[in-house]
Amino acid sequence: MPKKLVVQKYGGSSVANVERIQRVAQRVVSYAKKGFNLVVVVSALGDTTDELIELADQIDAAPSEREMDMLLSTGEQISVALLAMAINKLKKQAISFTGAQVGIITDTSHTRARIIKINTDRINKELQLGKIVIVAGFQGVTLNQDITTLGRGGSDLTAVALAKELKADSCEIYTDVEGIYTTDPRIEPRAQKIAAITYDEMLEMASLGAQVMQPRSIEVAKKFDVPLHVRSSFSLNSGTMIIKEVKKMEDVVVSGITLNKNEAKITLCGVPDKPGVAVKLFQDLAASGVSVDMIVQNVSHTRQTDISFTTTKIDCGKASKITKKVAQKIGAGEVLIDEDIARVSIVGVGMKSHHGVAAKMFGIMAKNKINIEMISTSDISISCIIKKKYAEMAVKKLHAEFGLNK
Amino acid sequence: MPKKLVVQKYGGSSVANVERIQRVAQRVVSYAKKGFNLVVVVSALGDTTDELIELADQIDAAPSEREMDMLLSTGEQISVALLAMAINKLKKQAISFTGAQVGIITDTSHTRARIIKINTDRINKELQLGKIVIVAGFQGVTLNQDITTLGRGGSDLTAVALAKELKADSCEIYTDVEGIYTTDPRIEPRAQKIAAITYDEMLEMASLGAQVMQPRSIEVAKKFDVPLHVRSSFSLNSGTMIIKEVKKMEDVVVSGITLNKNEAKITLCGVPDKPGVAVKLFQDLAASGVSVDMIVQNVSHTRQTDISFTTTKIDCGKASKITKKVAQKIGAGEVLIDEDIARVSIVGVGMKSHHGVAAKMFGIMAKNKINIEMISTSDISISCIIKKKYAEMAVKKLHAEFGLNK
Repeated sequence: MPKKLVVQKYGGSSVANVERIQRVAQRVVSYAKKGFNLVVVVSALGDTTDELIELADQIDAAPSEREMDMLLSTGEQISVALLAMAINKLKKQAISFTGAQVGIITDTSHTRARIIKINTDRINKELQLGKIVIVAGFQGVTLNQDITTLGRGGSDLTAVALAKELKADSCEIYTDVEGIYTTDPRIEPRAQKIAAITYDEMLEMASLGAQVMQPRSIEVAKKFDVPLHVRSSFSLNSGTMIIKEVKKMEDVVVSGITLNKNEAKITLCGVPDKPGVAVKLFQDLAASGVSVDMIVQNVSHTRQTDISFTTTKIDCGKASKITKKVAQKIGAGEVLIDEDIARVSIVGVGMKSHHGVAAKMFGIMAKNKINIEMISTSDISISCIIKKKYAEMAVKKLHAEFGLNK
Repeated sequence: MPKKLVVQKYGGSSVANVERIQRVAQRVVSYAKKGFNLVVVVSALGDTTDELIELADQIDAAPSEREMDMLLSTGEQISVALLAMAINKLKKQAISFTGAQVGIITDTSHTRARIIKINTDRINKELQLGKIVIVAGFQGVTLNQDITTLGRGGSDLTAVALAKELKADSCEIYTDVEGIYTTDPRIEPRAQKIAAITYDEMLEMASLGAQVMQPRSIEVAKKFDVPLHVRSSFSLNSGTMIIKEVKKMEDVVVSGITLNKNEAKITLCGVPDKPGVAVKLFQDLAASGVSVDMIVQNVSHTRQTDISFTTTKIDCGKASKITKKVAQKIGAGEVLIDEDIARVSIVGVGMKSHHGVAAKMFGIMAKNKINIEMISTSDISISCIIKKKYAEMAVKKLHAEFGLNK
């Protein structure tokens, strides 16, 4: 029977220093001794990437993206070489590769490249020789041999793509937390580690503020049905499985509660209530690259209405400038900026088959005298914008009332 | 008329920090503005290589050489990316490459690989597009896509090999000194910068202790007749040309004086004076990888003789152990170790056509009461082993008496 293949990915905090690299090496070797074939994807050591960005910034605040990729890709190359040495030191043969060497071919969109194909010949050859293969995460190479990087969370993507391409039996994402929690344990200590969650729920949670994995790699995992196991590199406990479908003992409606404090609300008051007015505002925002999230337009009682939308705090300055310009042009009133807000969301595939989940959420907010300023819903999530000072309380109350304080 | 092509190489001290990288960028751009095509070879930033070696050493004192090359090659990759950014910032287009990307193909001898061939297609393409091409020194790639490094002084070798392959009009080696001096200016302040020196003299001086360039790259330059210009990255003065033949106004016999304090002398006393005894000693030394330099065997007055040889201080411990073992085996006497020696050498192609140069050197030593312990000669050099405490004095006296204090 052929050996089972495990793809493991270790993030920057798991390889932040020599001691941690040695610990990762021990874990990798323990798997090899159990008889697995191993492909290990590694991020750059701790703060290396930030240090390299800082160096580049001293030279040019807006450097060539191709050169930026050339620079940043060295971070992972250092990690893989050191990890291979640490594994060799434990008397197991390891061999390290850059993205280019293992044939992770991408398009030419430097700093956010997309993987086009992976040529797995070299990896398979080394696995057959009994070696543990270490691959630099986050990077690839164009057909023209230029080095590219895959953007934020790129190492996760490398691991998922390799797992798919190599038809791995499992893909483990090692991080500095024990897995995915029902909510942020720093807010609600009774937060529970989730044993299993669907790709869709994870995607929703990631886009609503859960920091563990980037949406892009989850999308790829979902597309090719690669089961992911998110777990801690500091313990042997099992973490959270991210899979297609979760069969649960009980009827779980809400899987997790997320909180995002990085948004701001902008309100344009006194907008003439006639067709085509809102269009102008959101066209101008889009043209400037401002990403708009929730949009609410009040029912009009007079000939005027108010339009509110949320954007990231980073885009807020740009967005408010554009909104003020549009206000003048269309003869609207005041523009209000509120950075003192938070978005609290409940996520769960169970919502699809349950009625009254939104009503229950709003009821919990009302019972606790938390005013809801904006609402947005998807198939499997409901989000409320509330005053920031109530954010933690709202998370705790929702966590309890939706039965997550096991 | 096609543009002239200049290959420039900048060492680690020339790119030790952001400010120096920016200064190198300015120099490169000034050449581009004069209408030259430029290929720029760069070493790793200042102490980067040492820091990476230190990291590896914490993991394994004897790491895999392949992984060591993987690790160390990141140093130059960082430099080239930063230099390309700094040049771009000055509004000239630059593009950086690793050794692998520009097709510097080597054999598989990791940490000391030899260049087999260079595929210059990509470089020529970018030059034709009007770009300044920045190449990582010190590194190459095997036909199997494994990253290699070229050993000490490898960046010089990269520059020389590229100059040869691209048929460059000149090859400039930038360093932190103004050129090659008649002797070390820290010892003799009246040392003169040499305007031009032959490959052979430079080779001899490098192997006898002059630190500016590694012998290997000079050998390659000699083999393919690539004229080198060694000069300072901190000034605009011209430095030293290293060329095939130097036509001099006057009849210069001695071009330079070198000093090497890194050797030790080992003497095996009371060796039975019969054929084959010395063989055993030097076979055993060679088998252990000890490099032996000068060897002197005294004329025998009795049935016994003494054999002295020099080796590097690093190899001295190993060498003395082996010598003591051999002494026991062959029934010789005491083994004396003297680390308190220095080698002073005079170098010059003029010696070939002048008699009495050795006699003059020995006379200068005698006049200054410096005892000569060992002597060794080549076509274009004479070396004396003397007590270390006389080393600086000997250099100054020789420098003056051979007419180098212009």
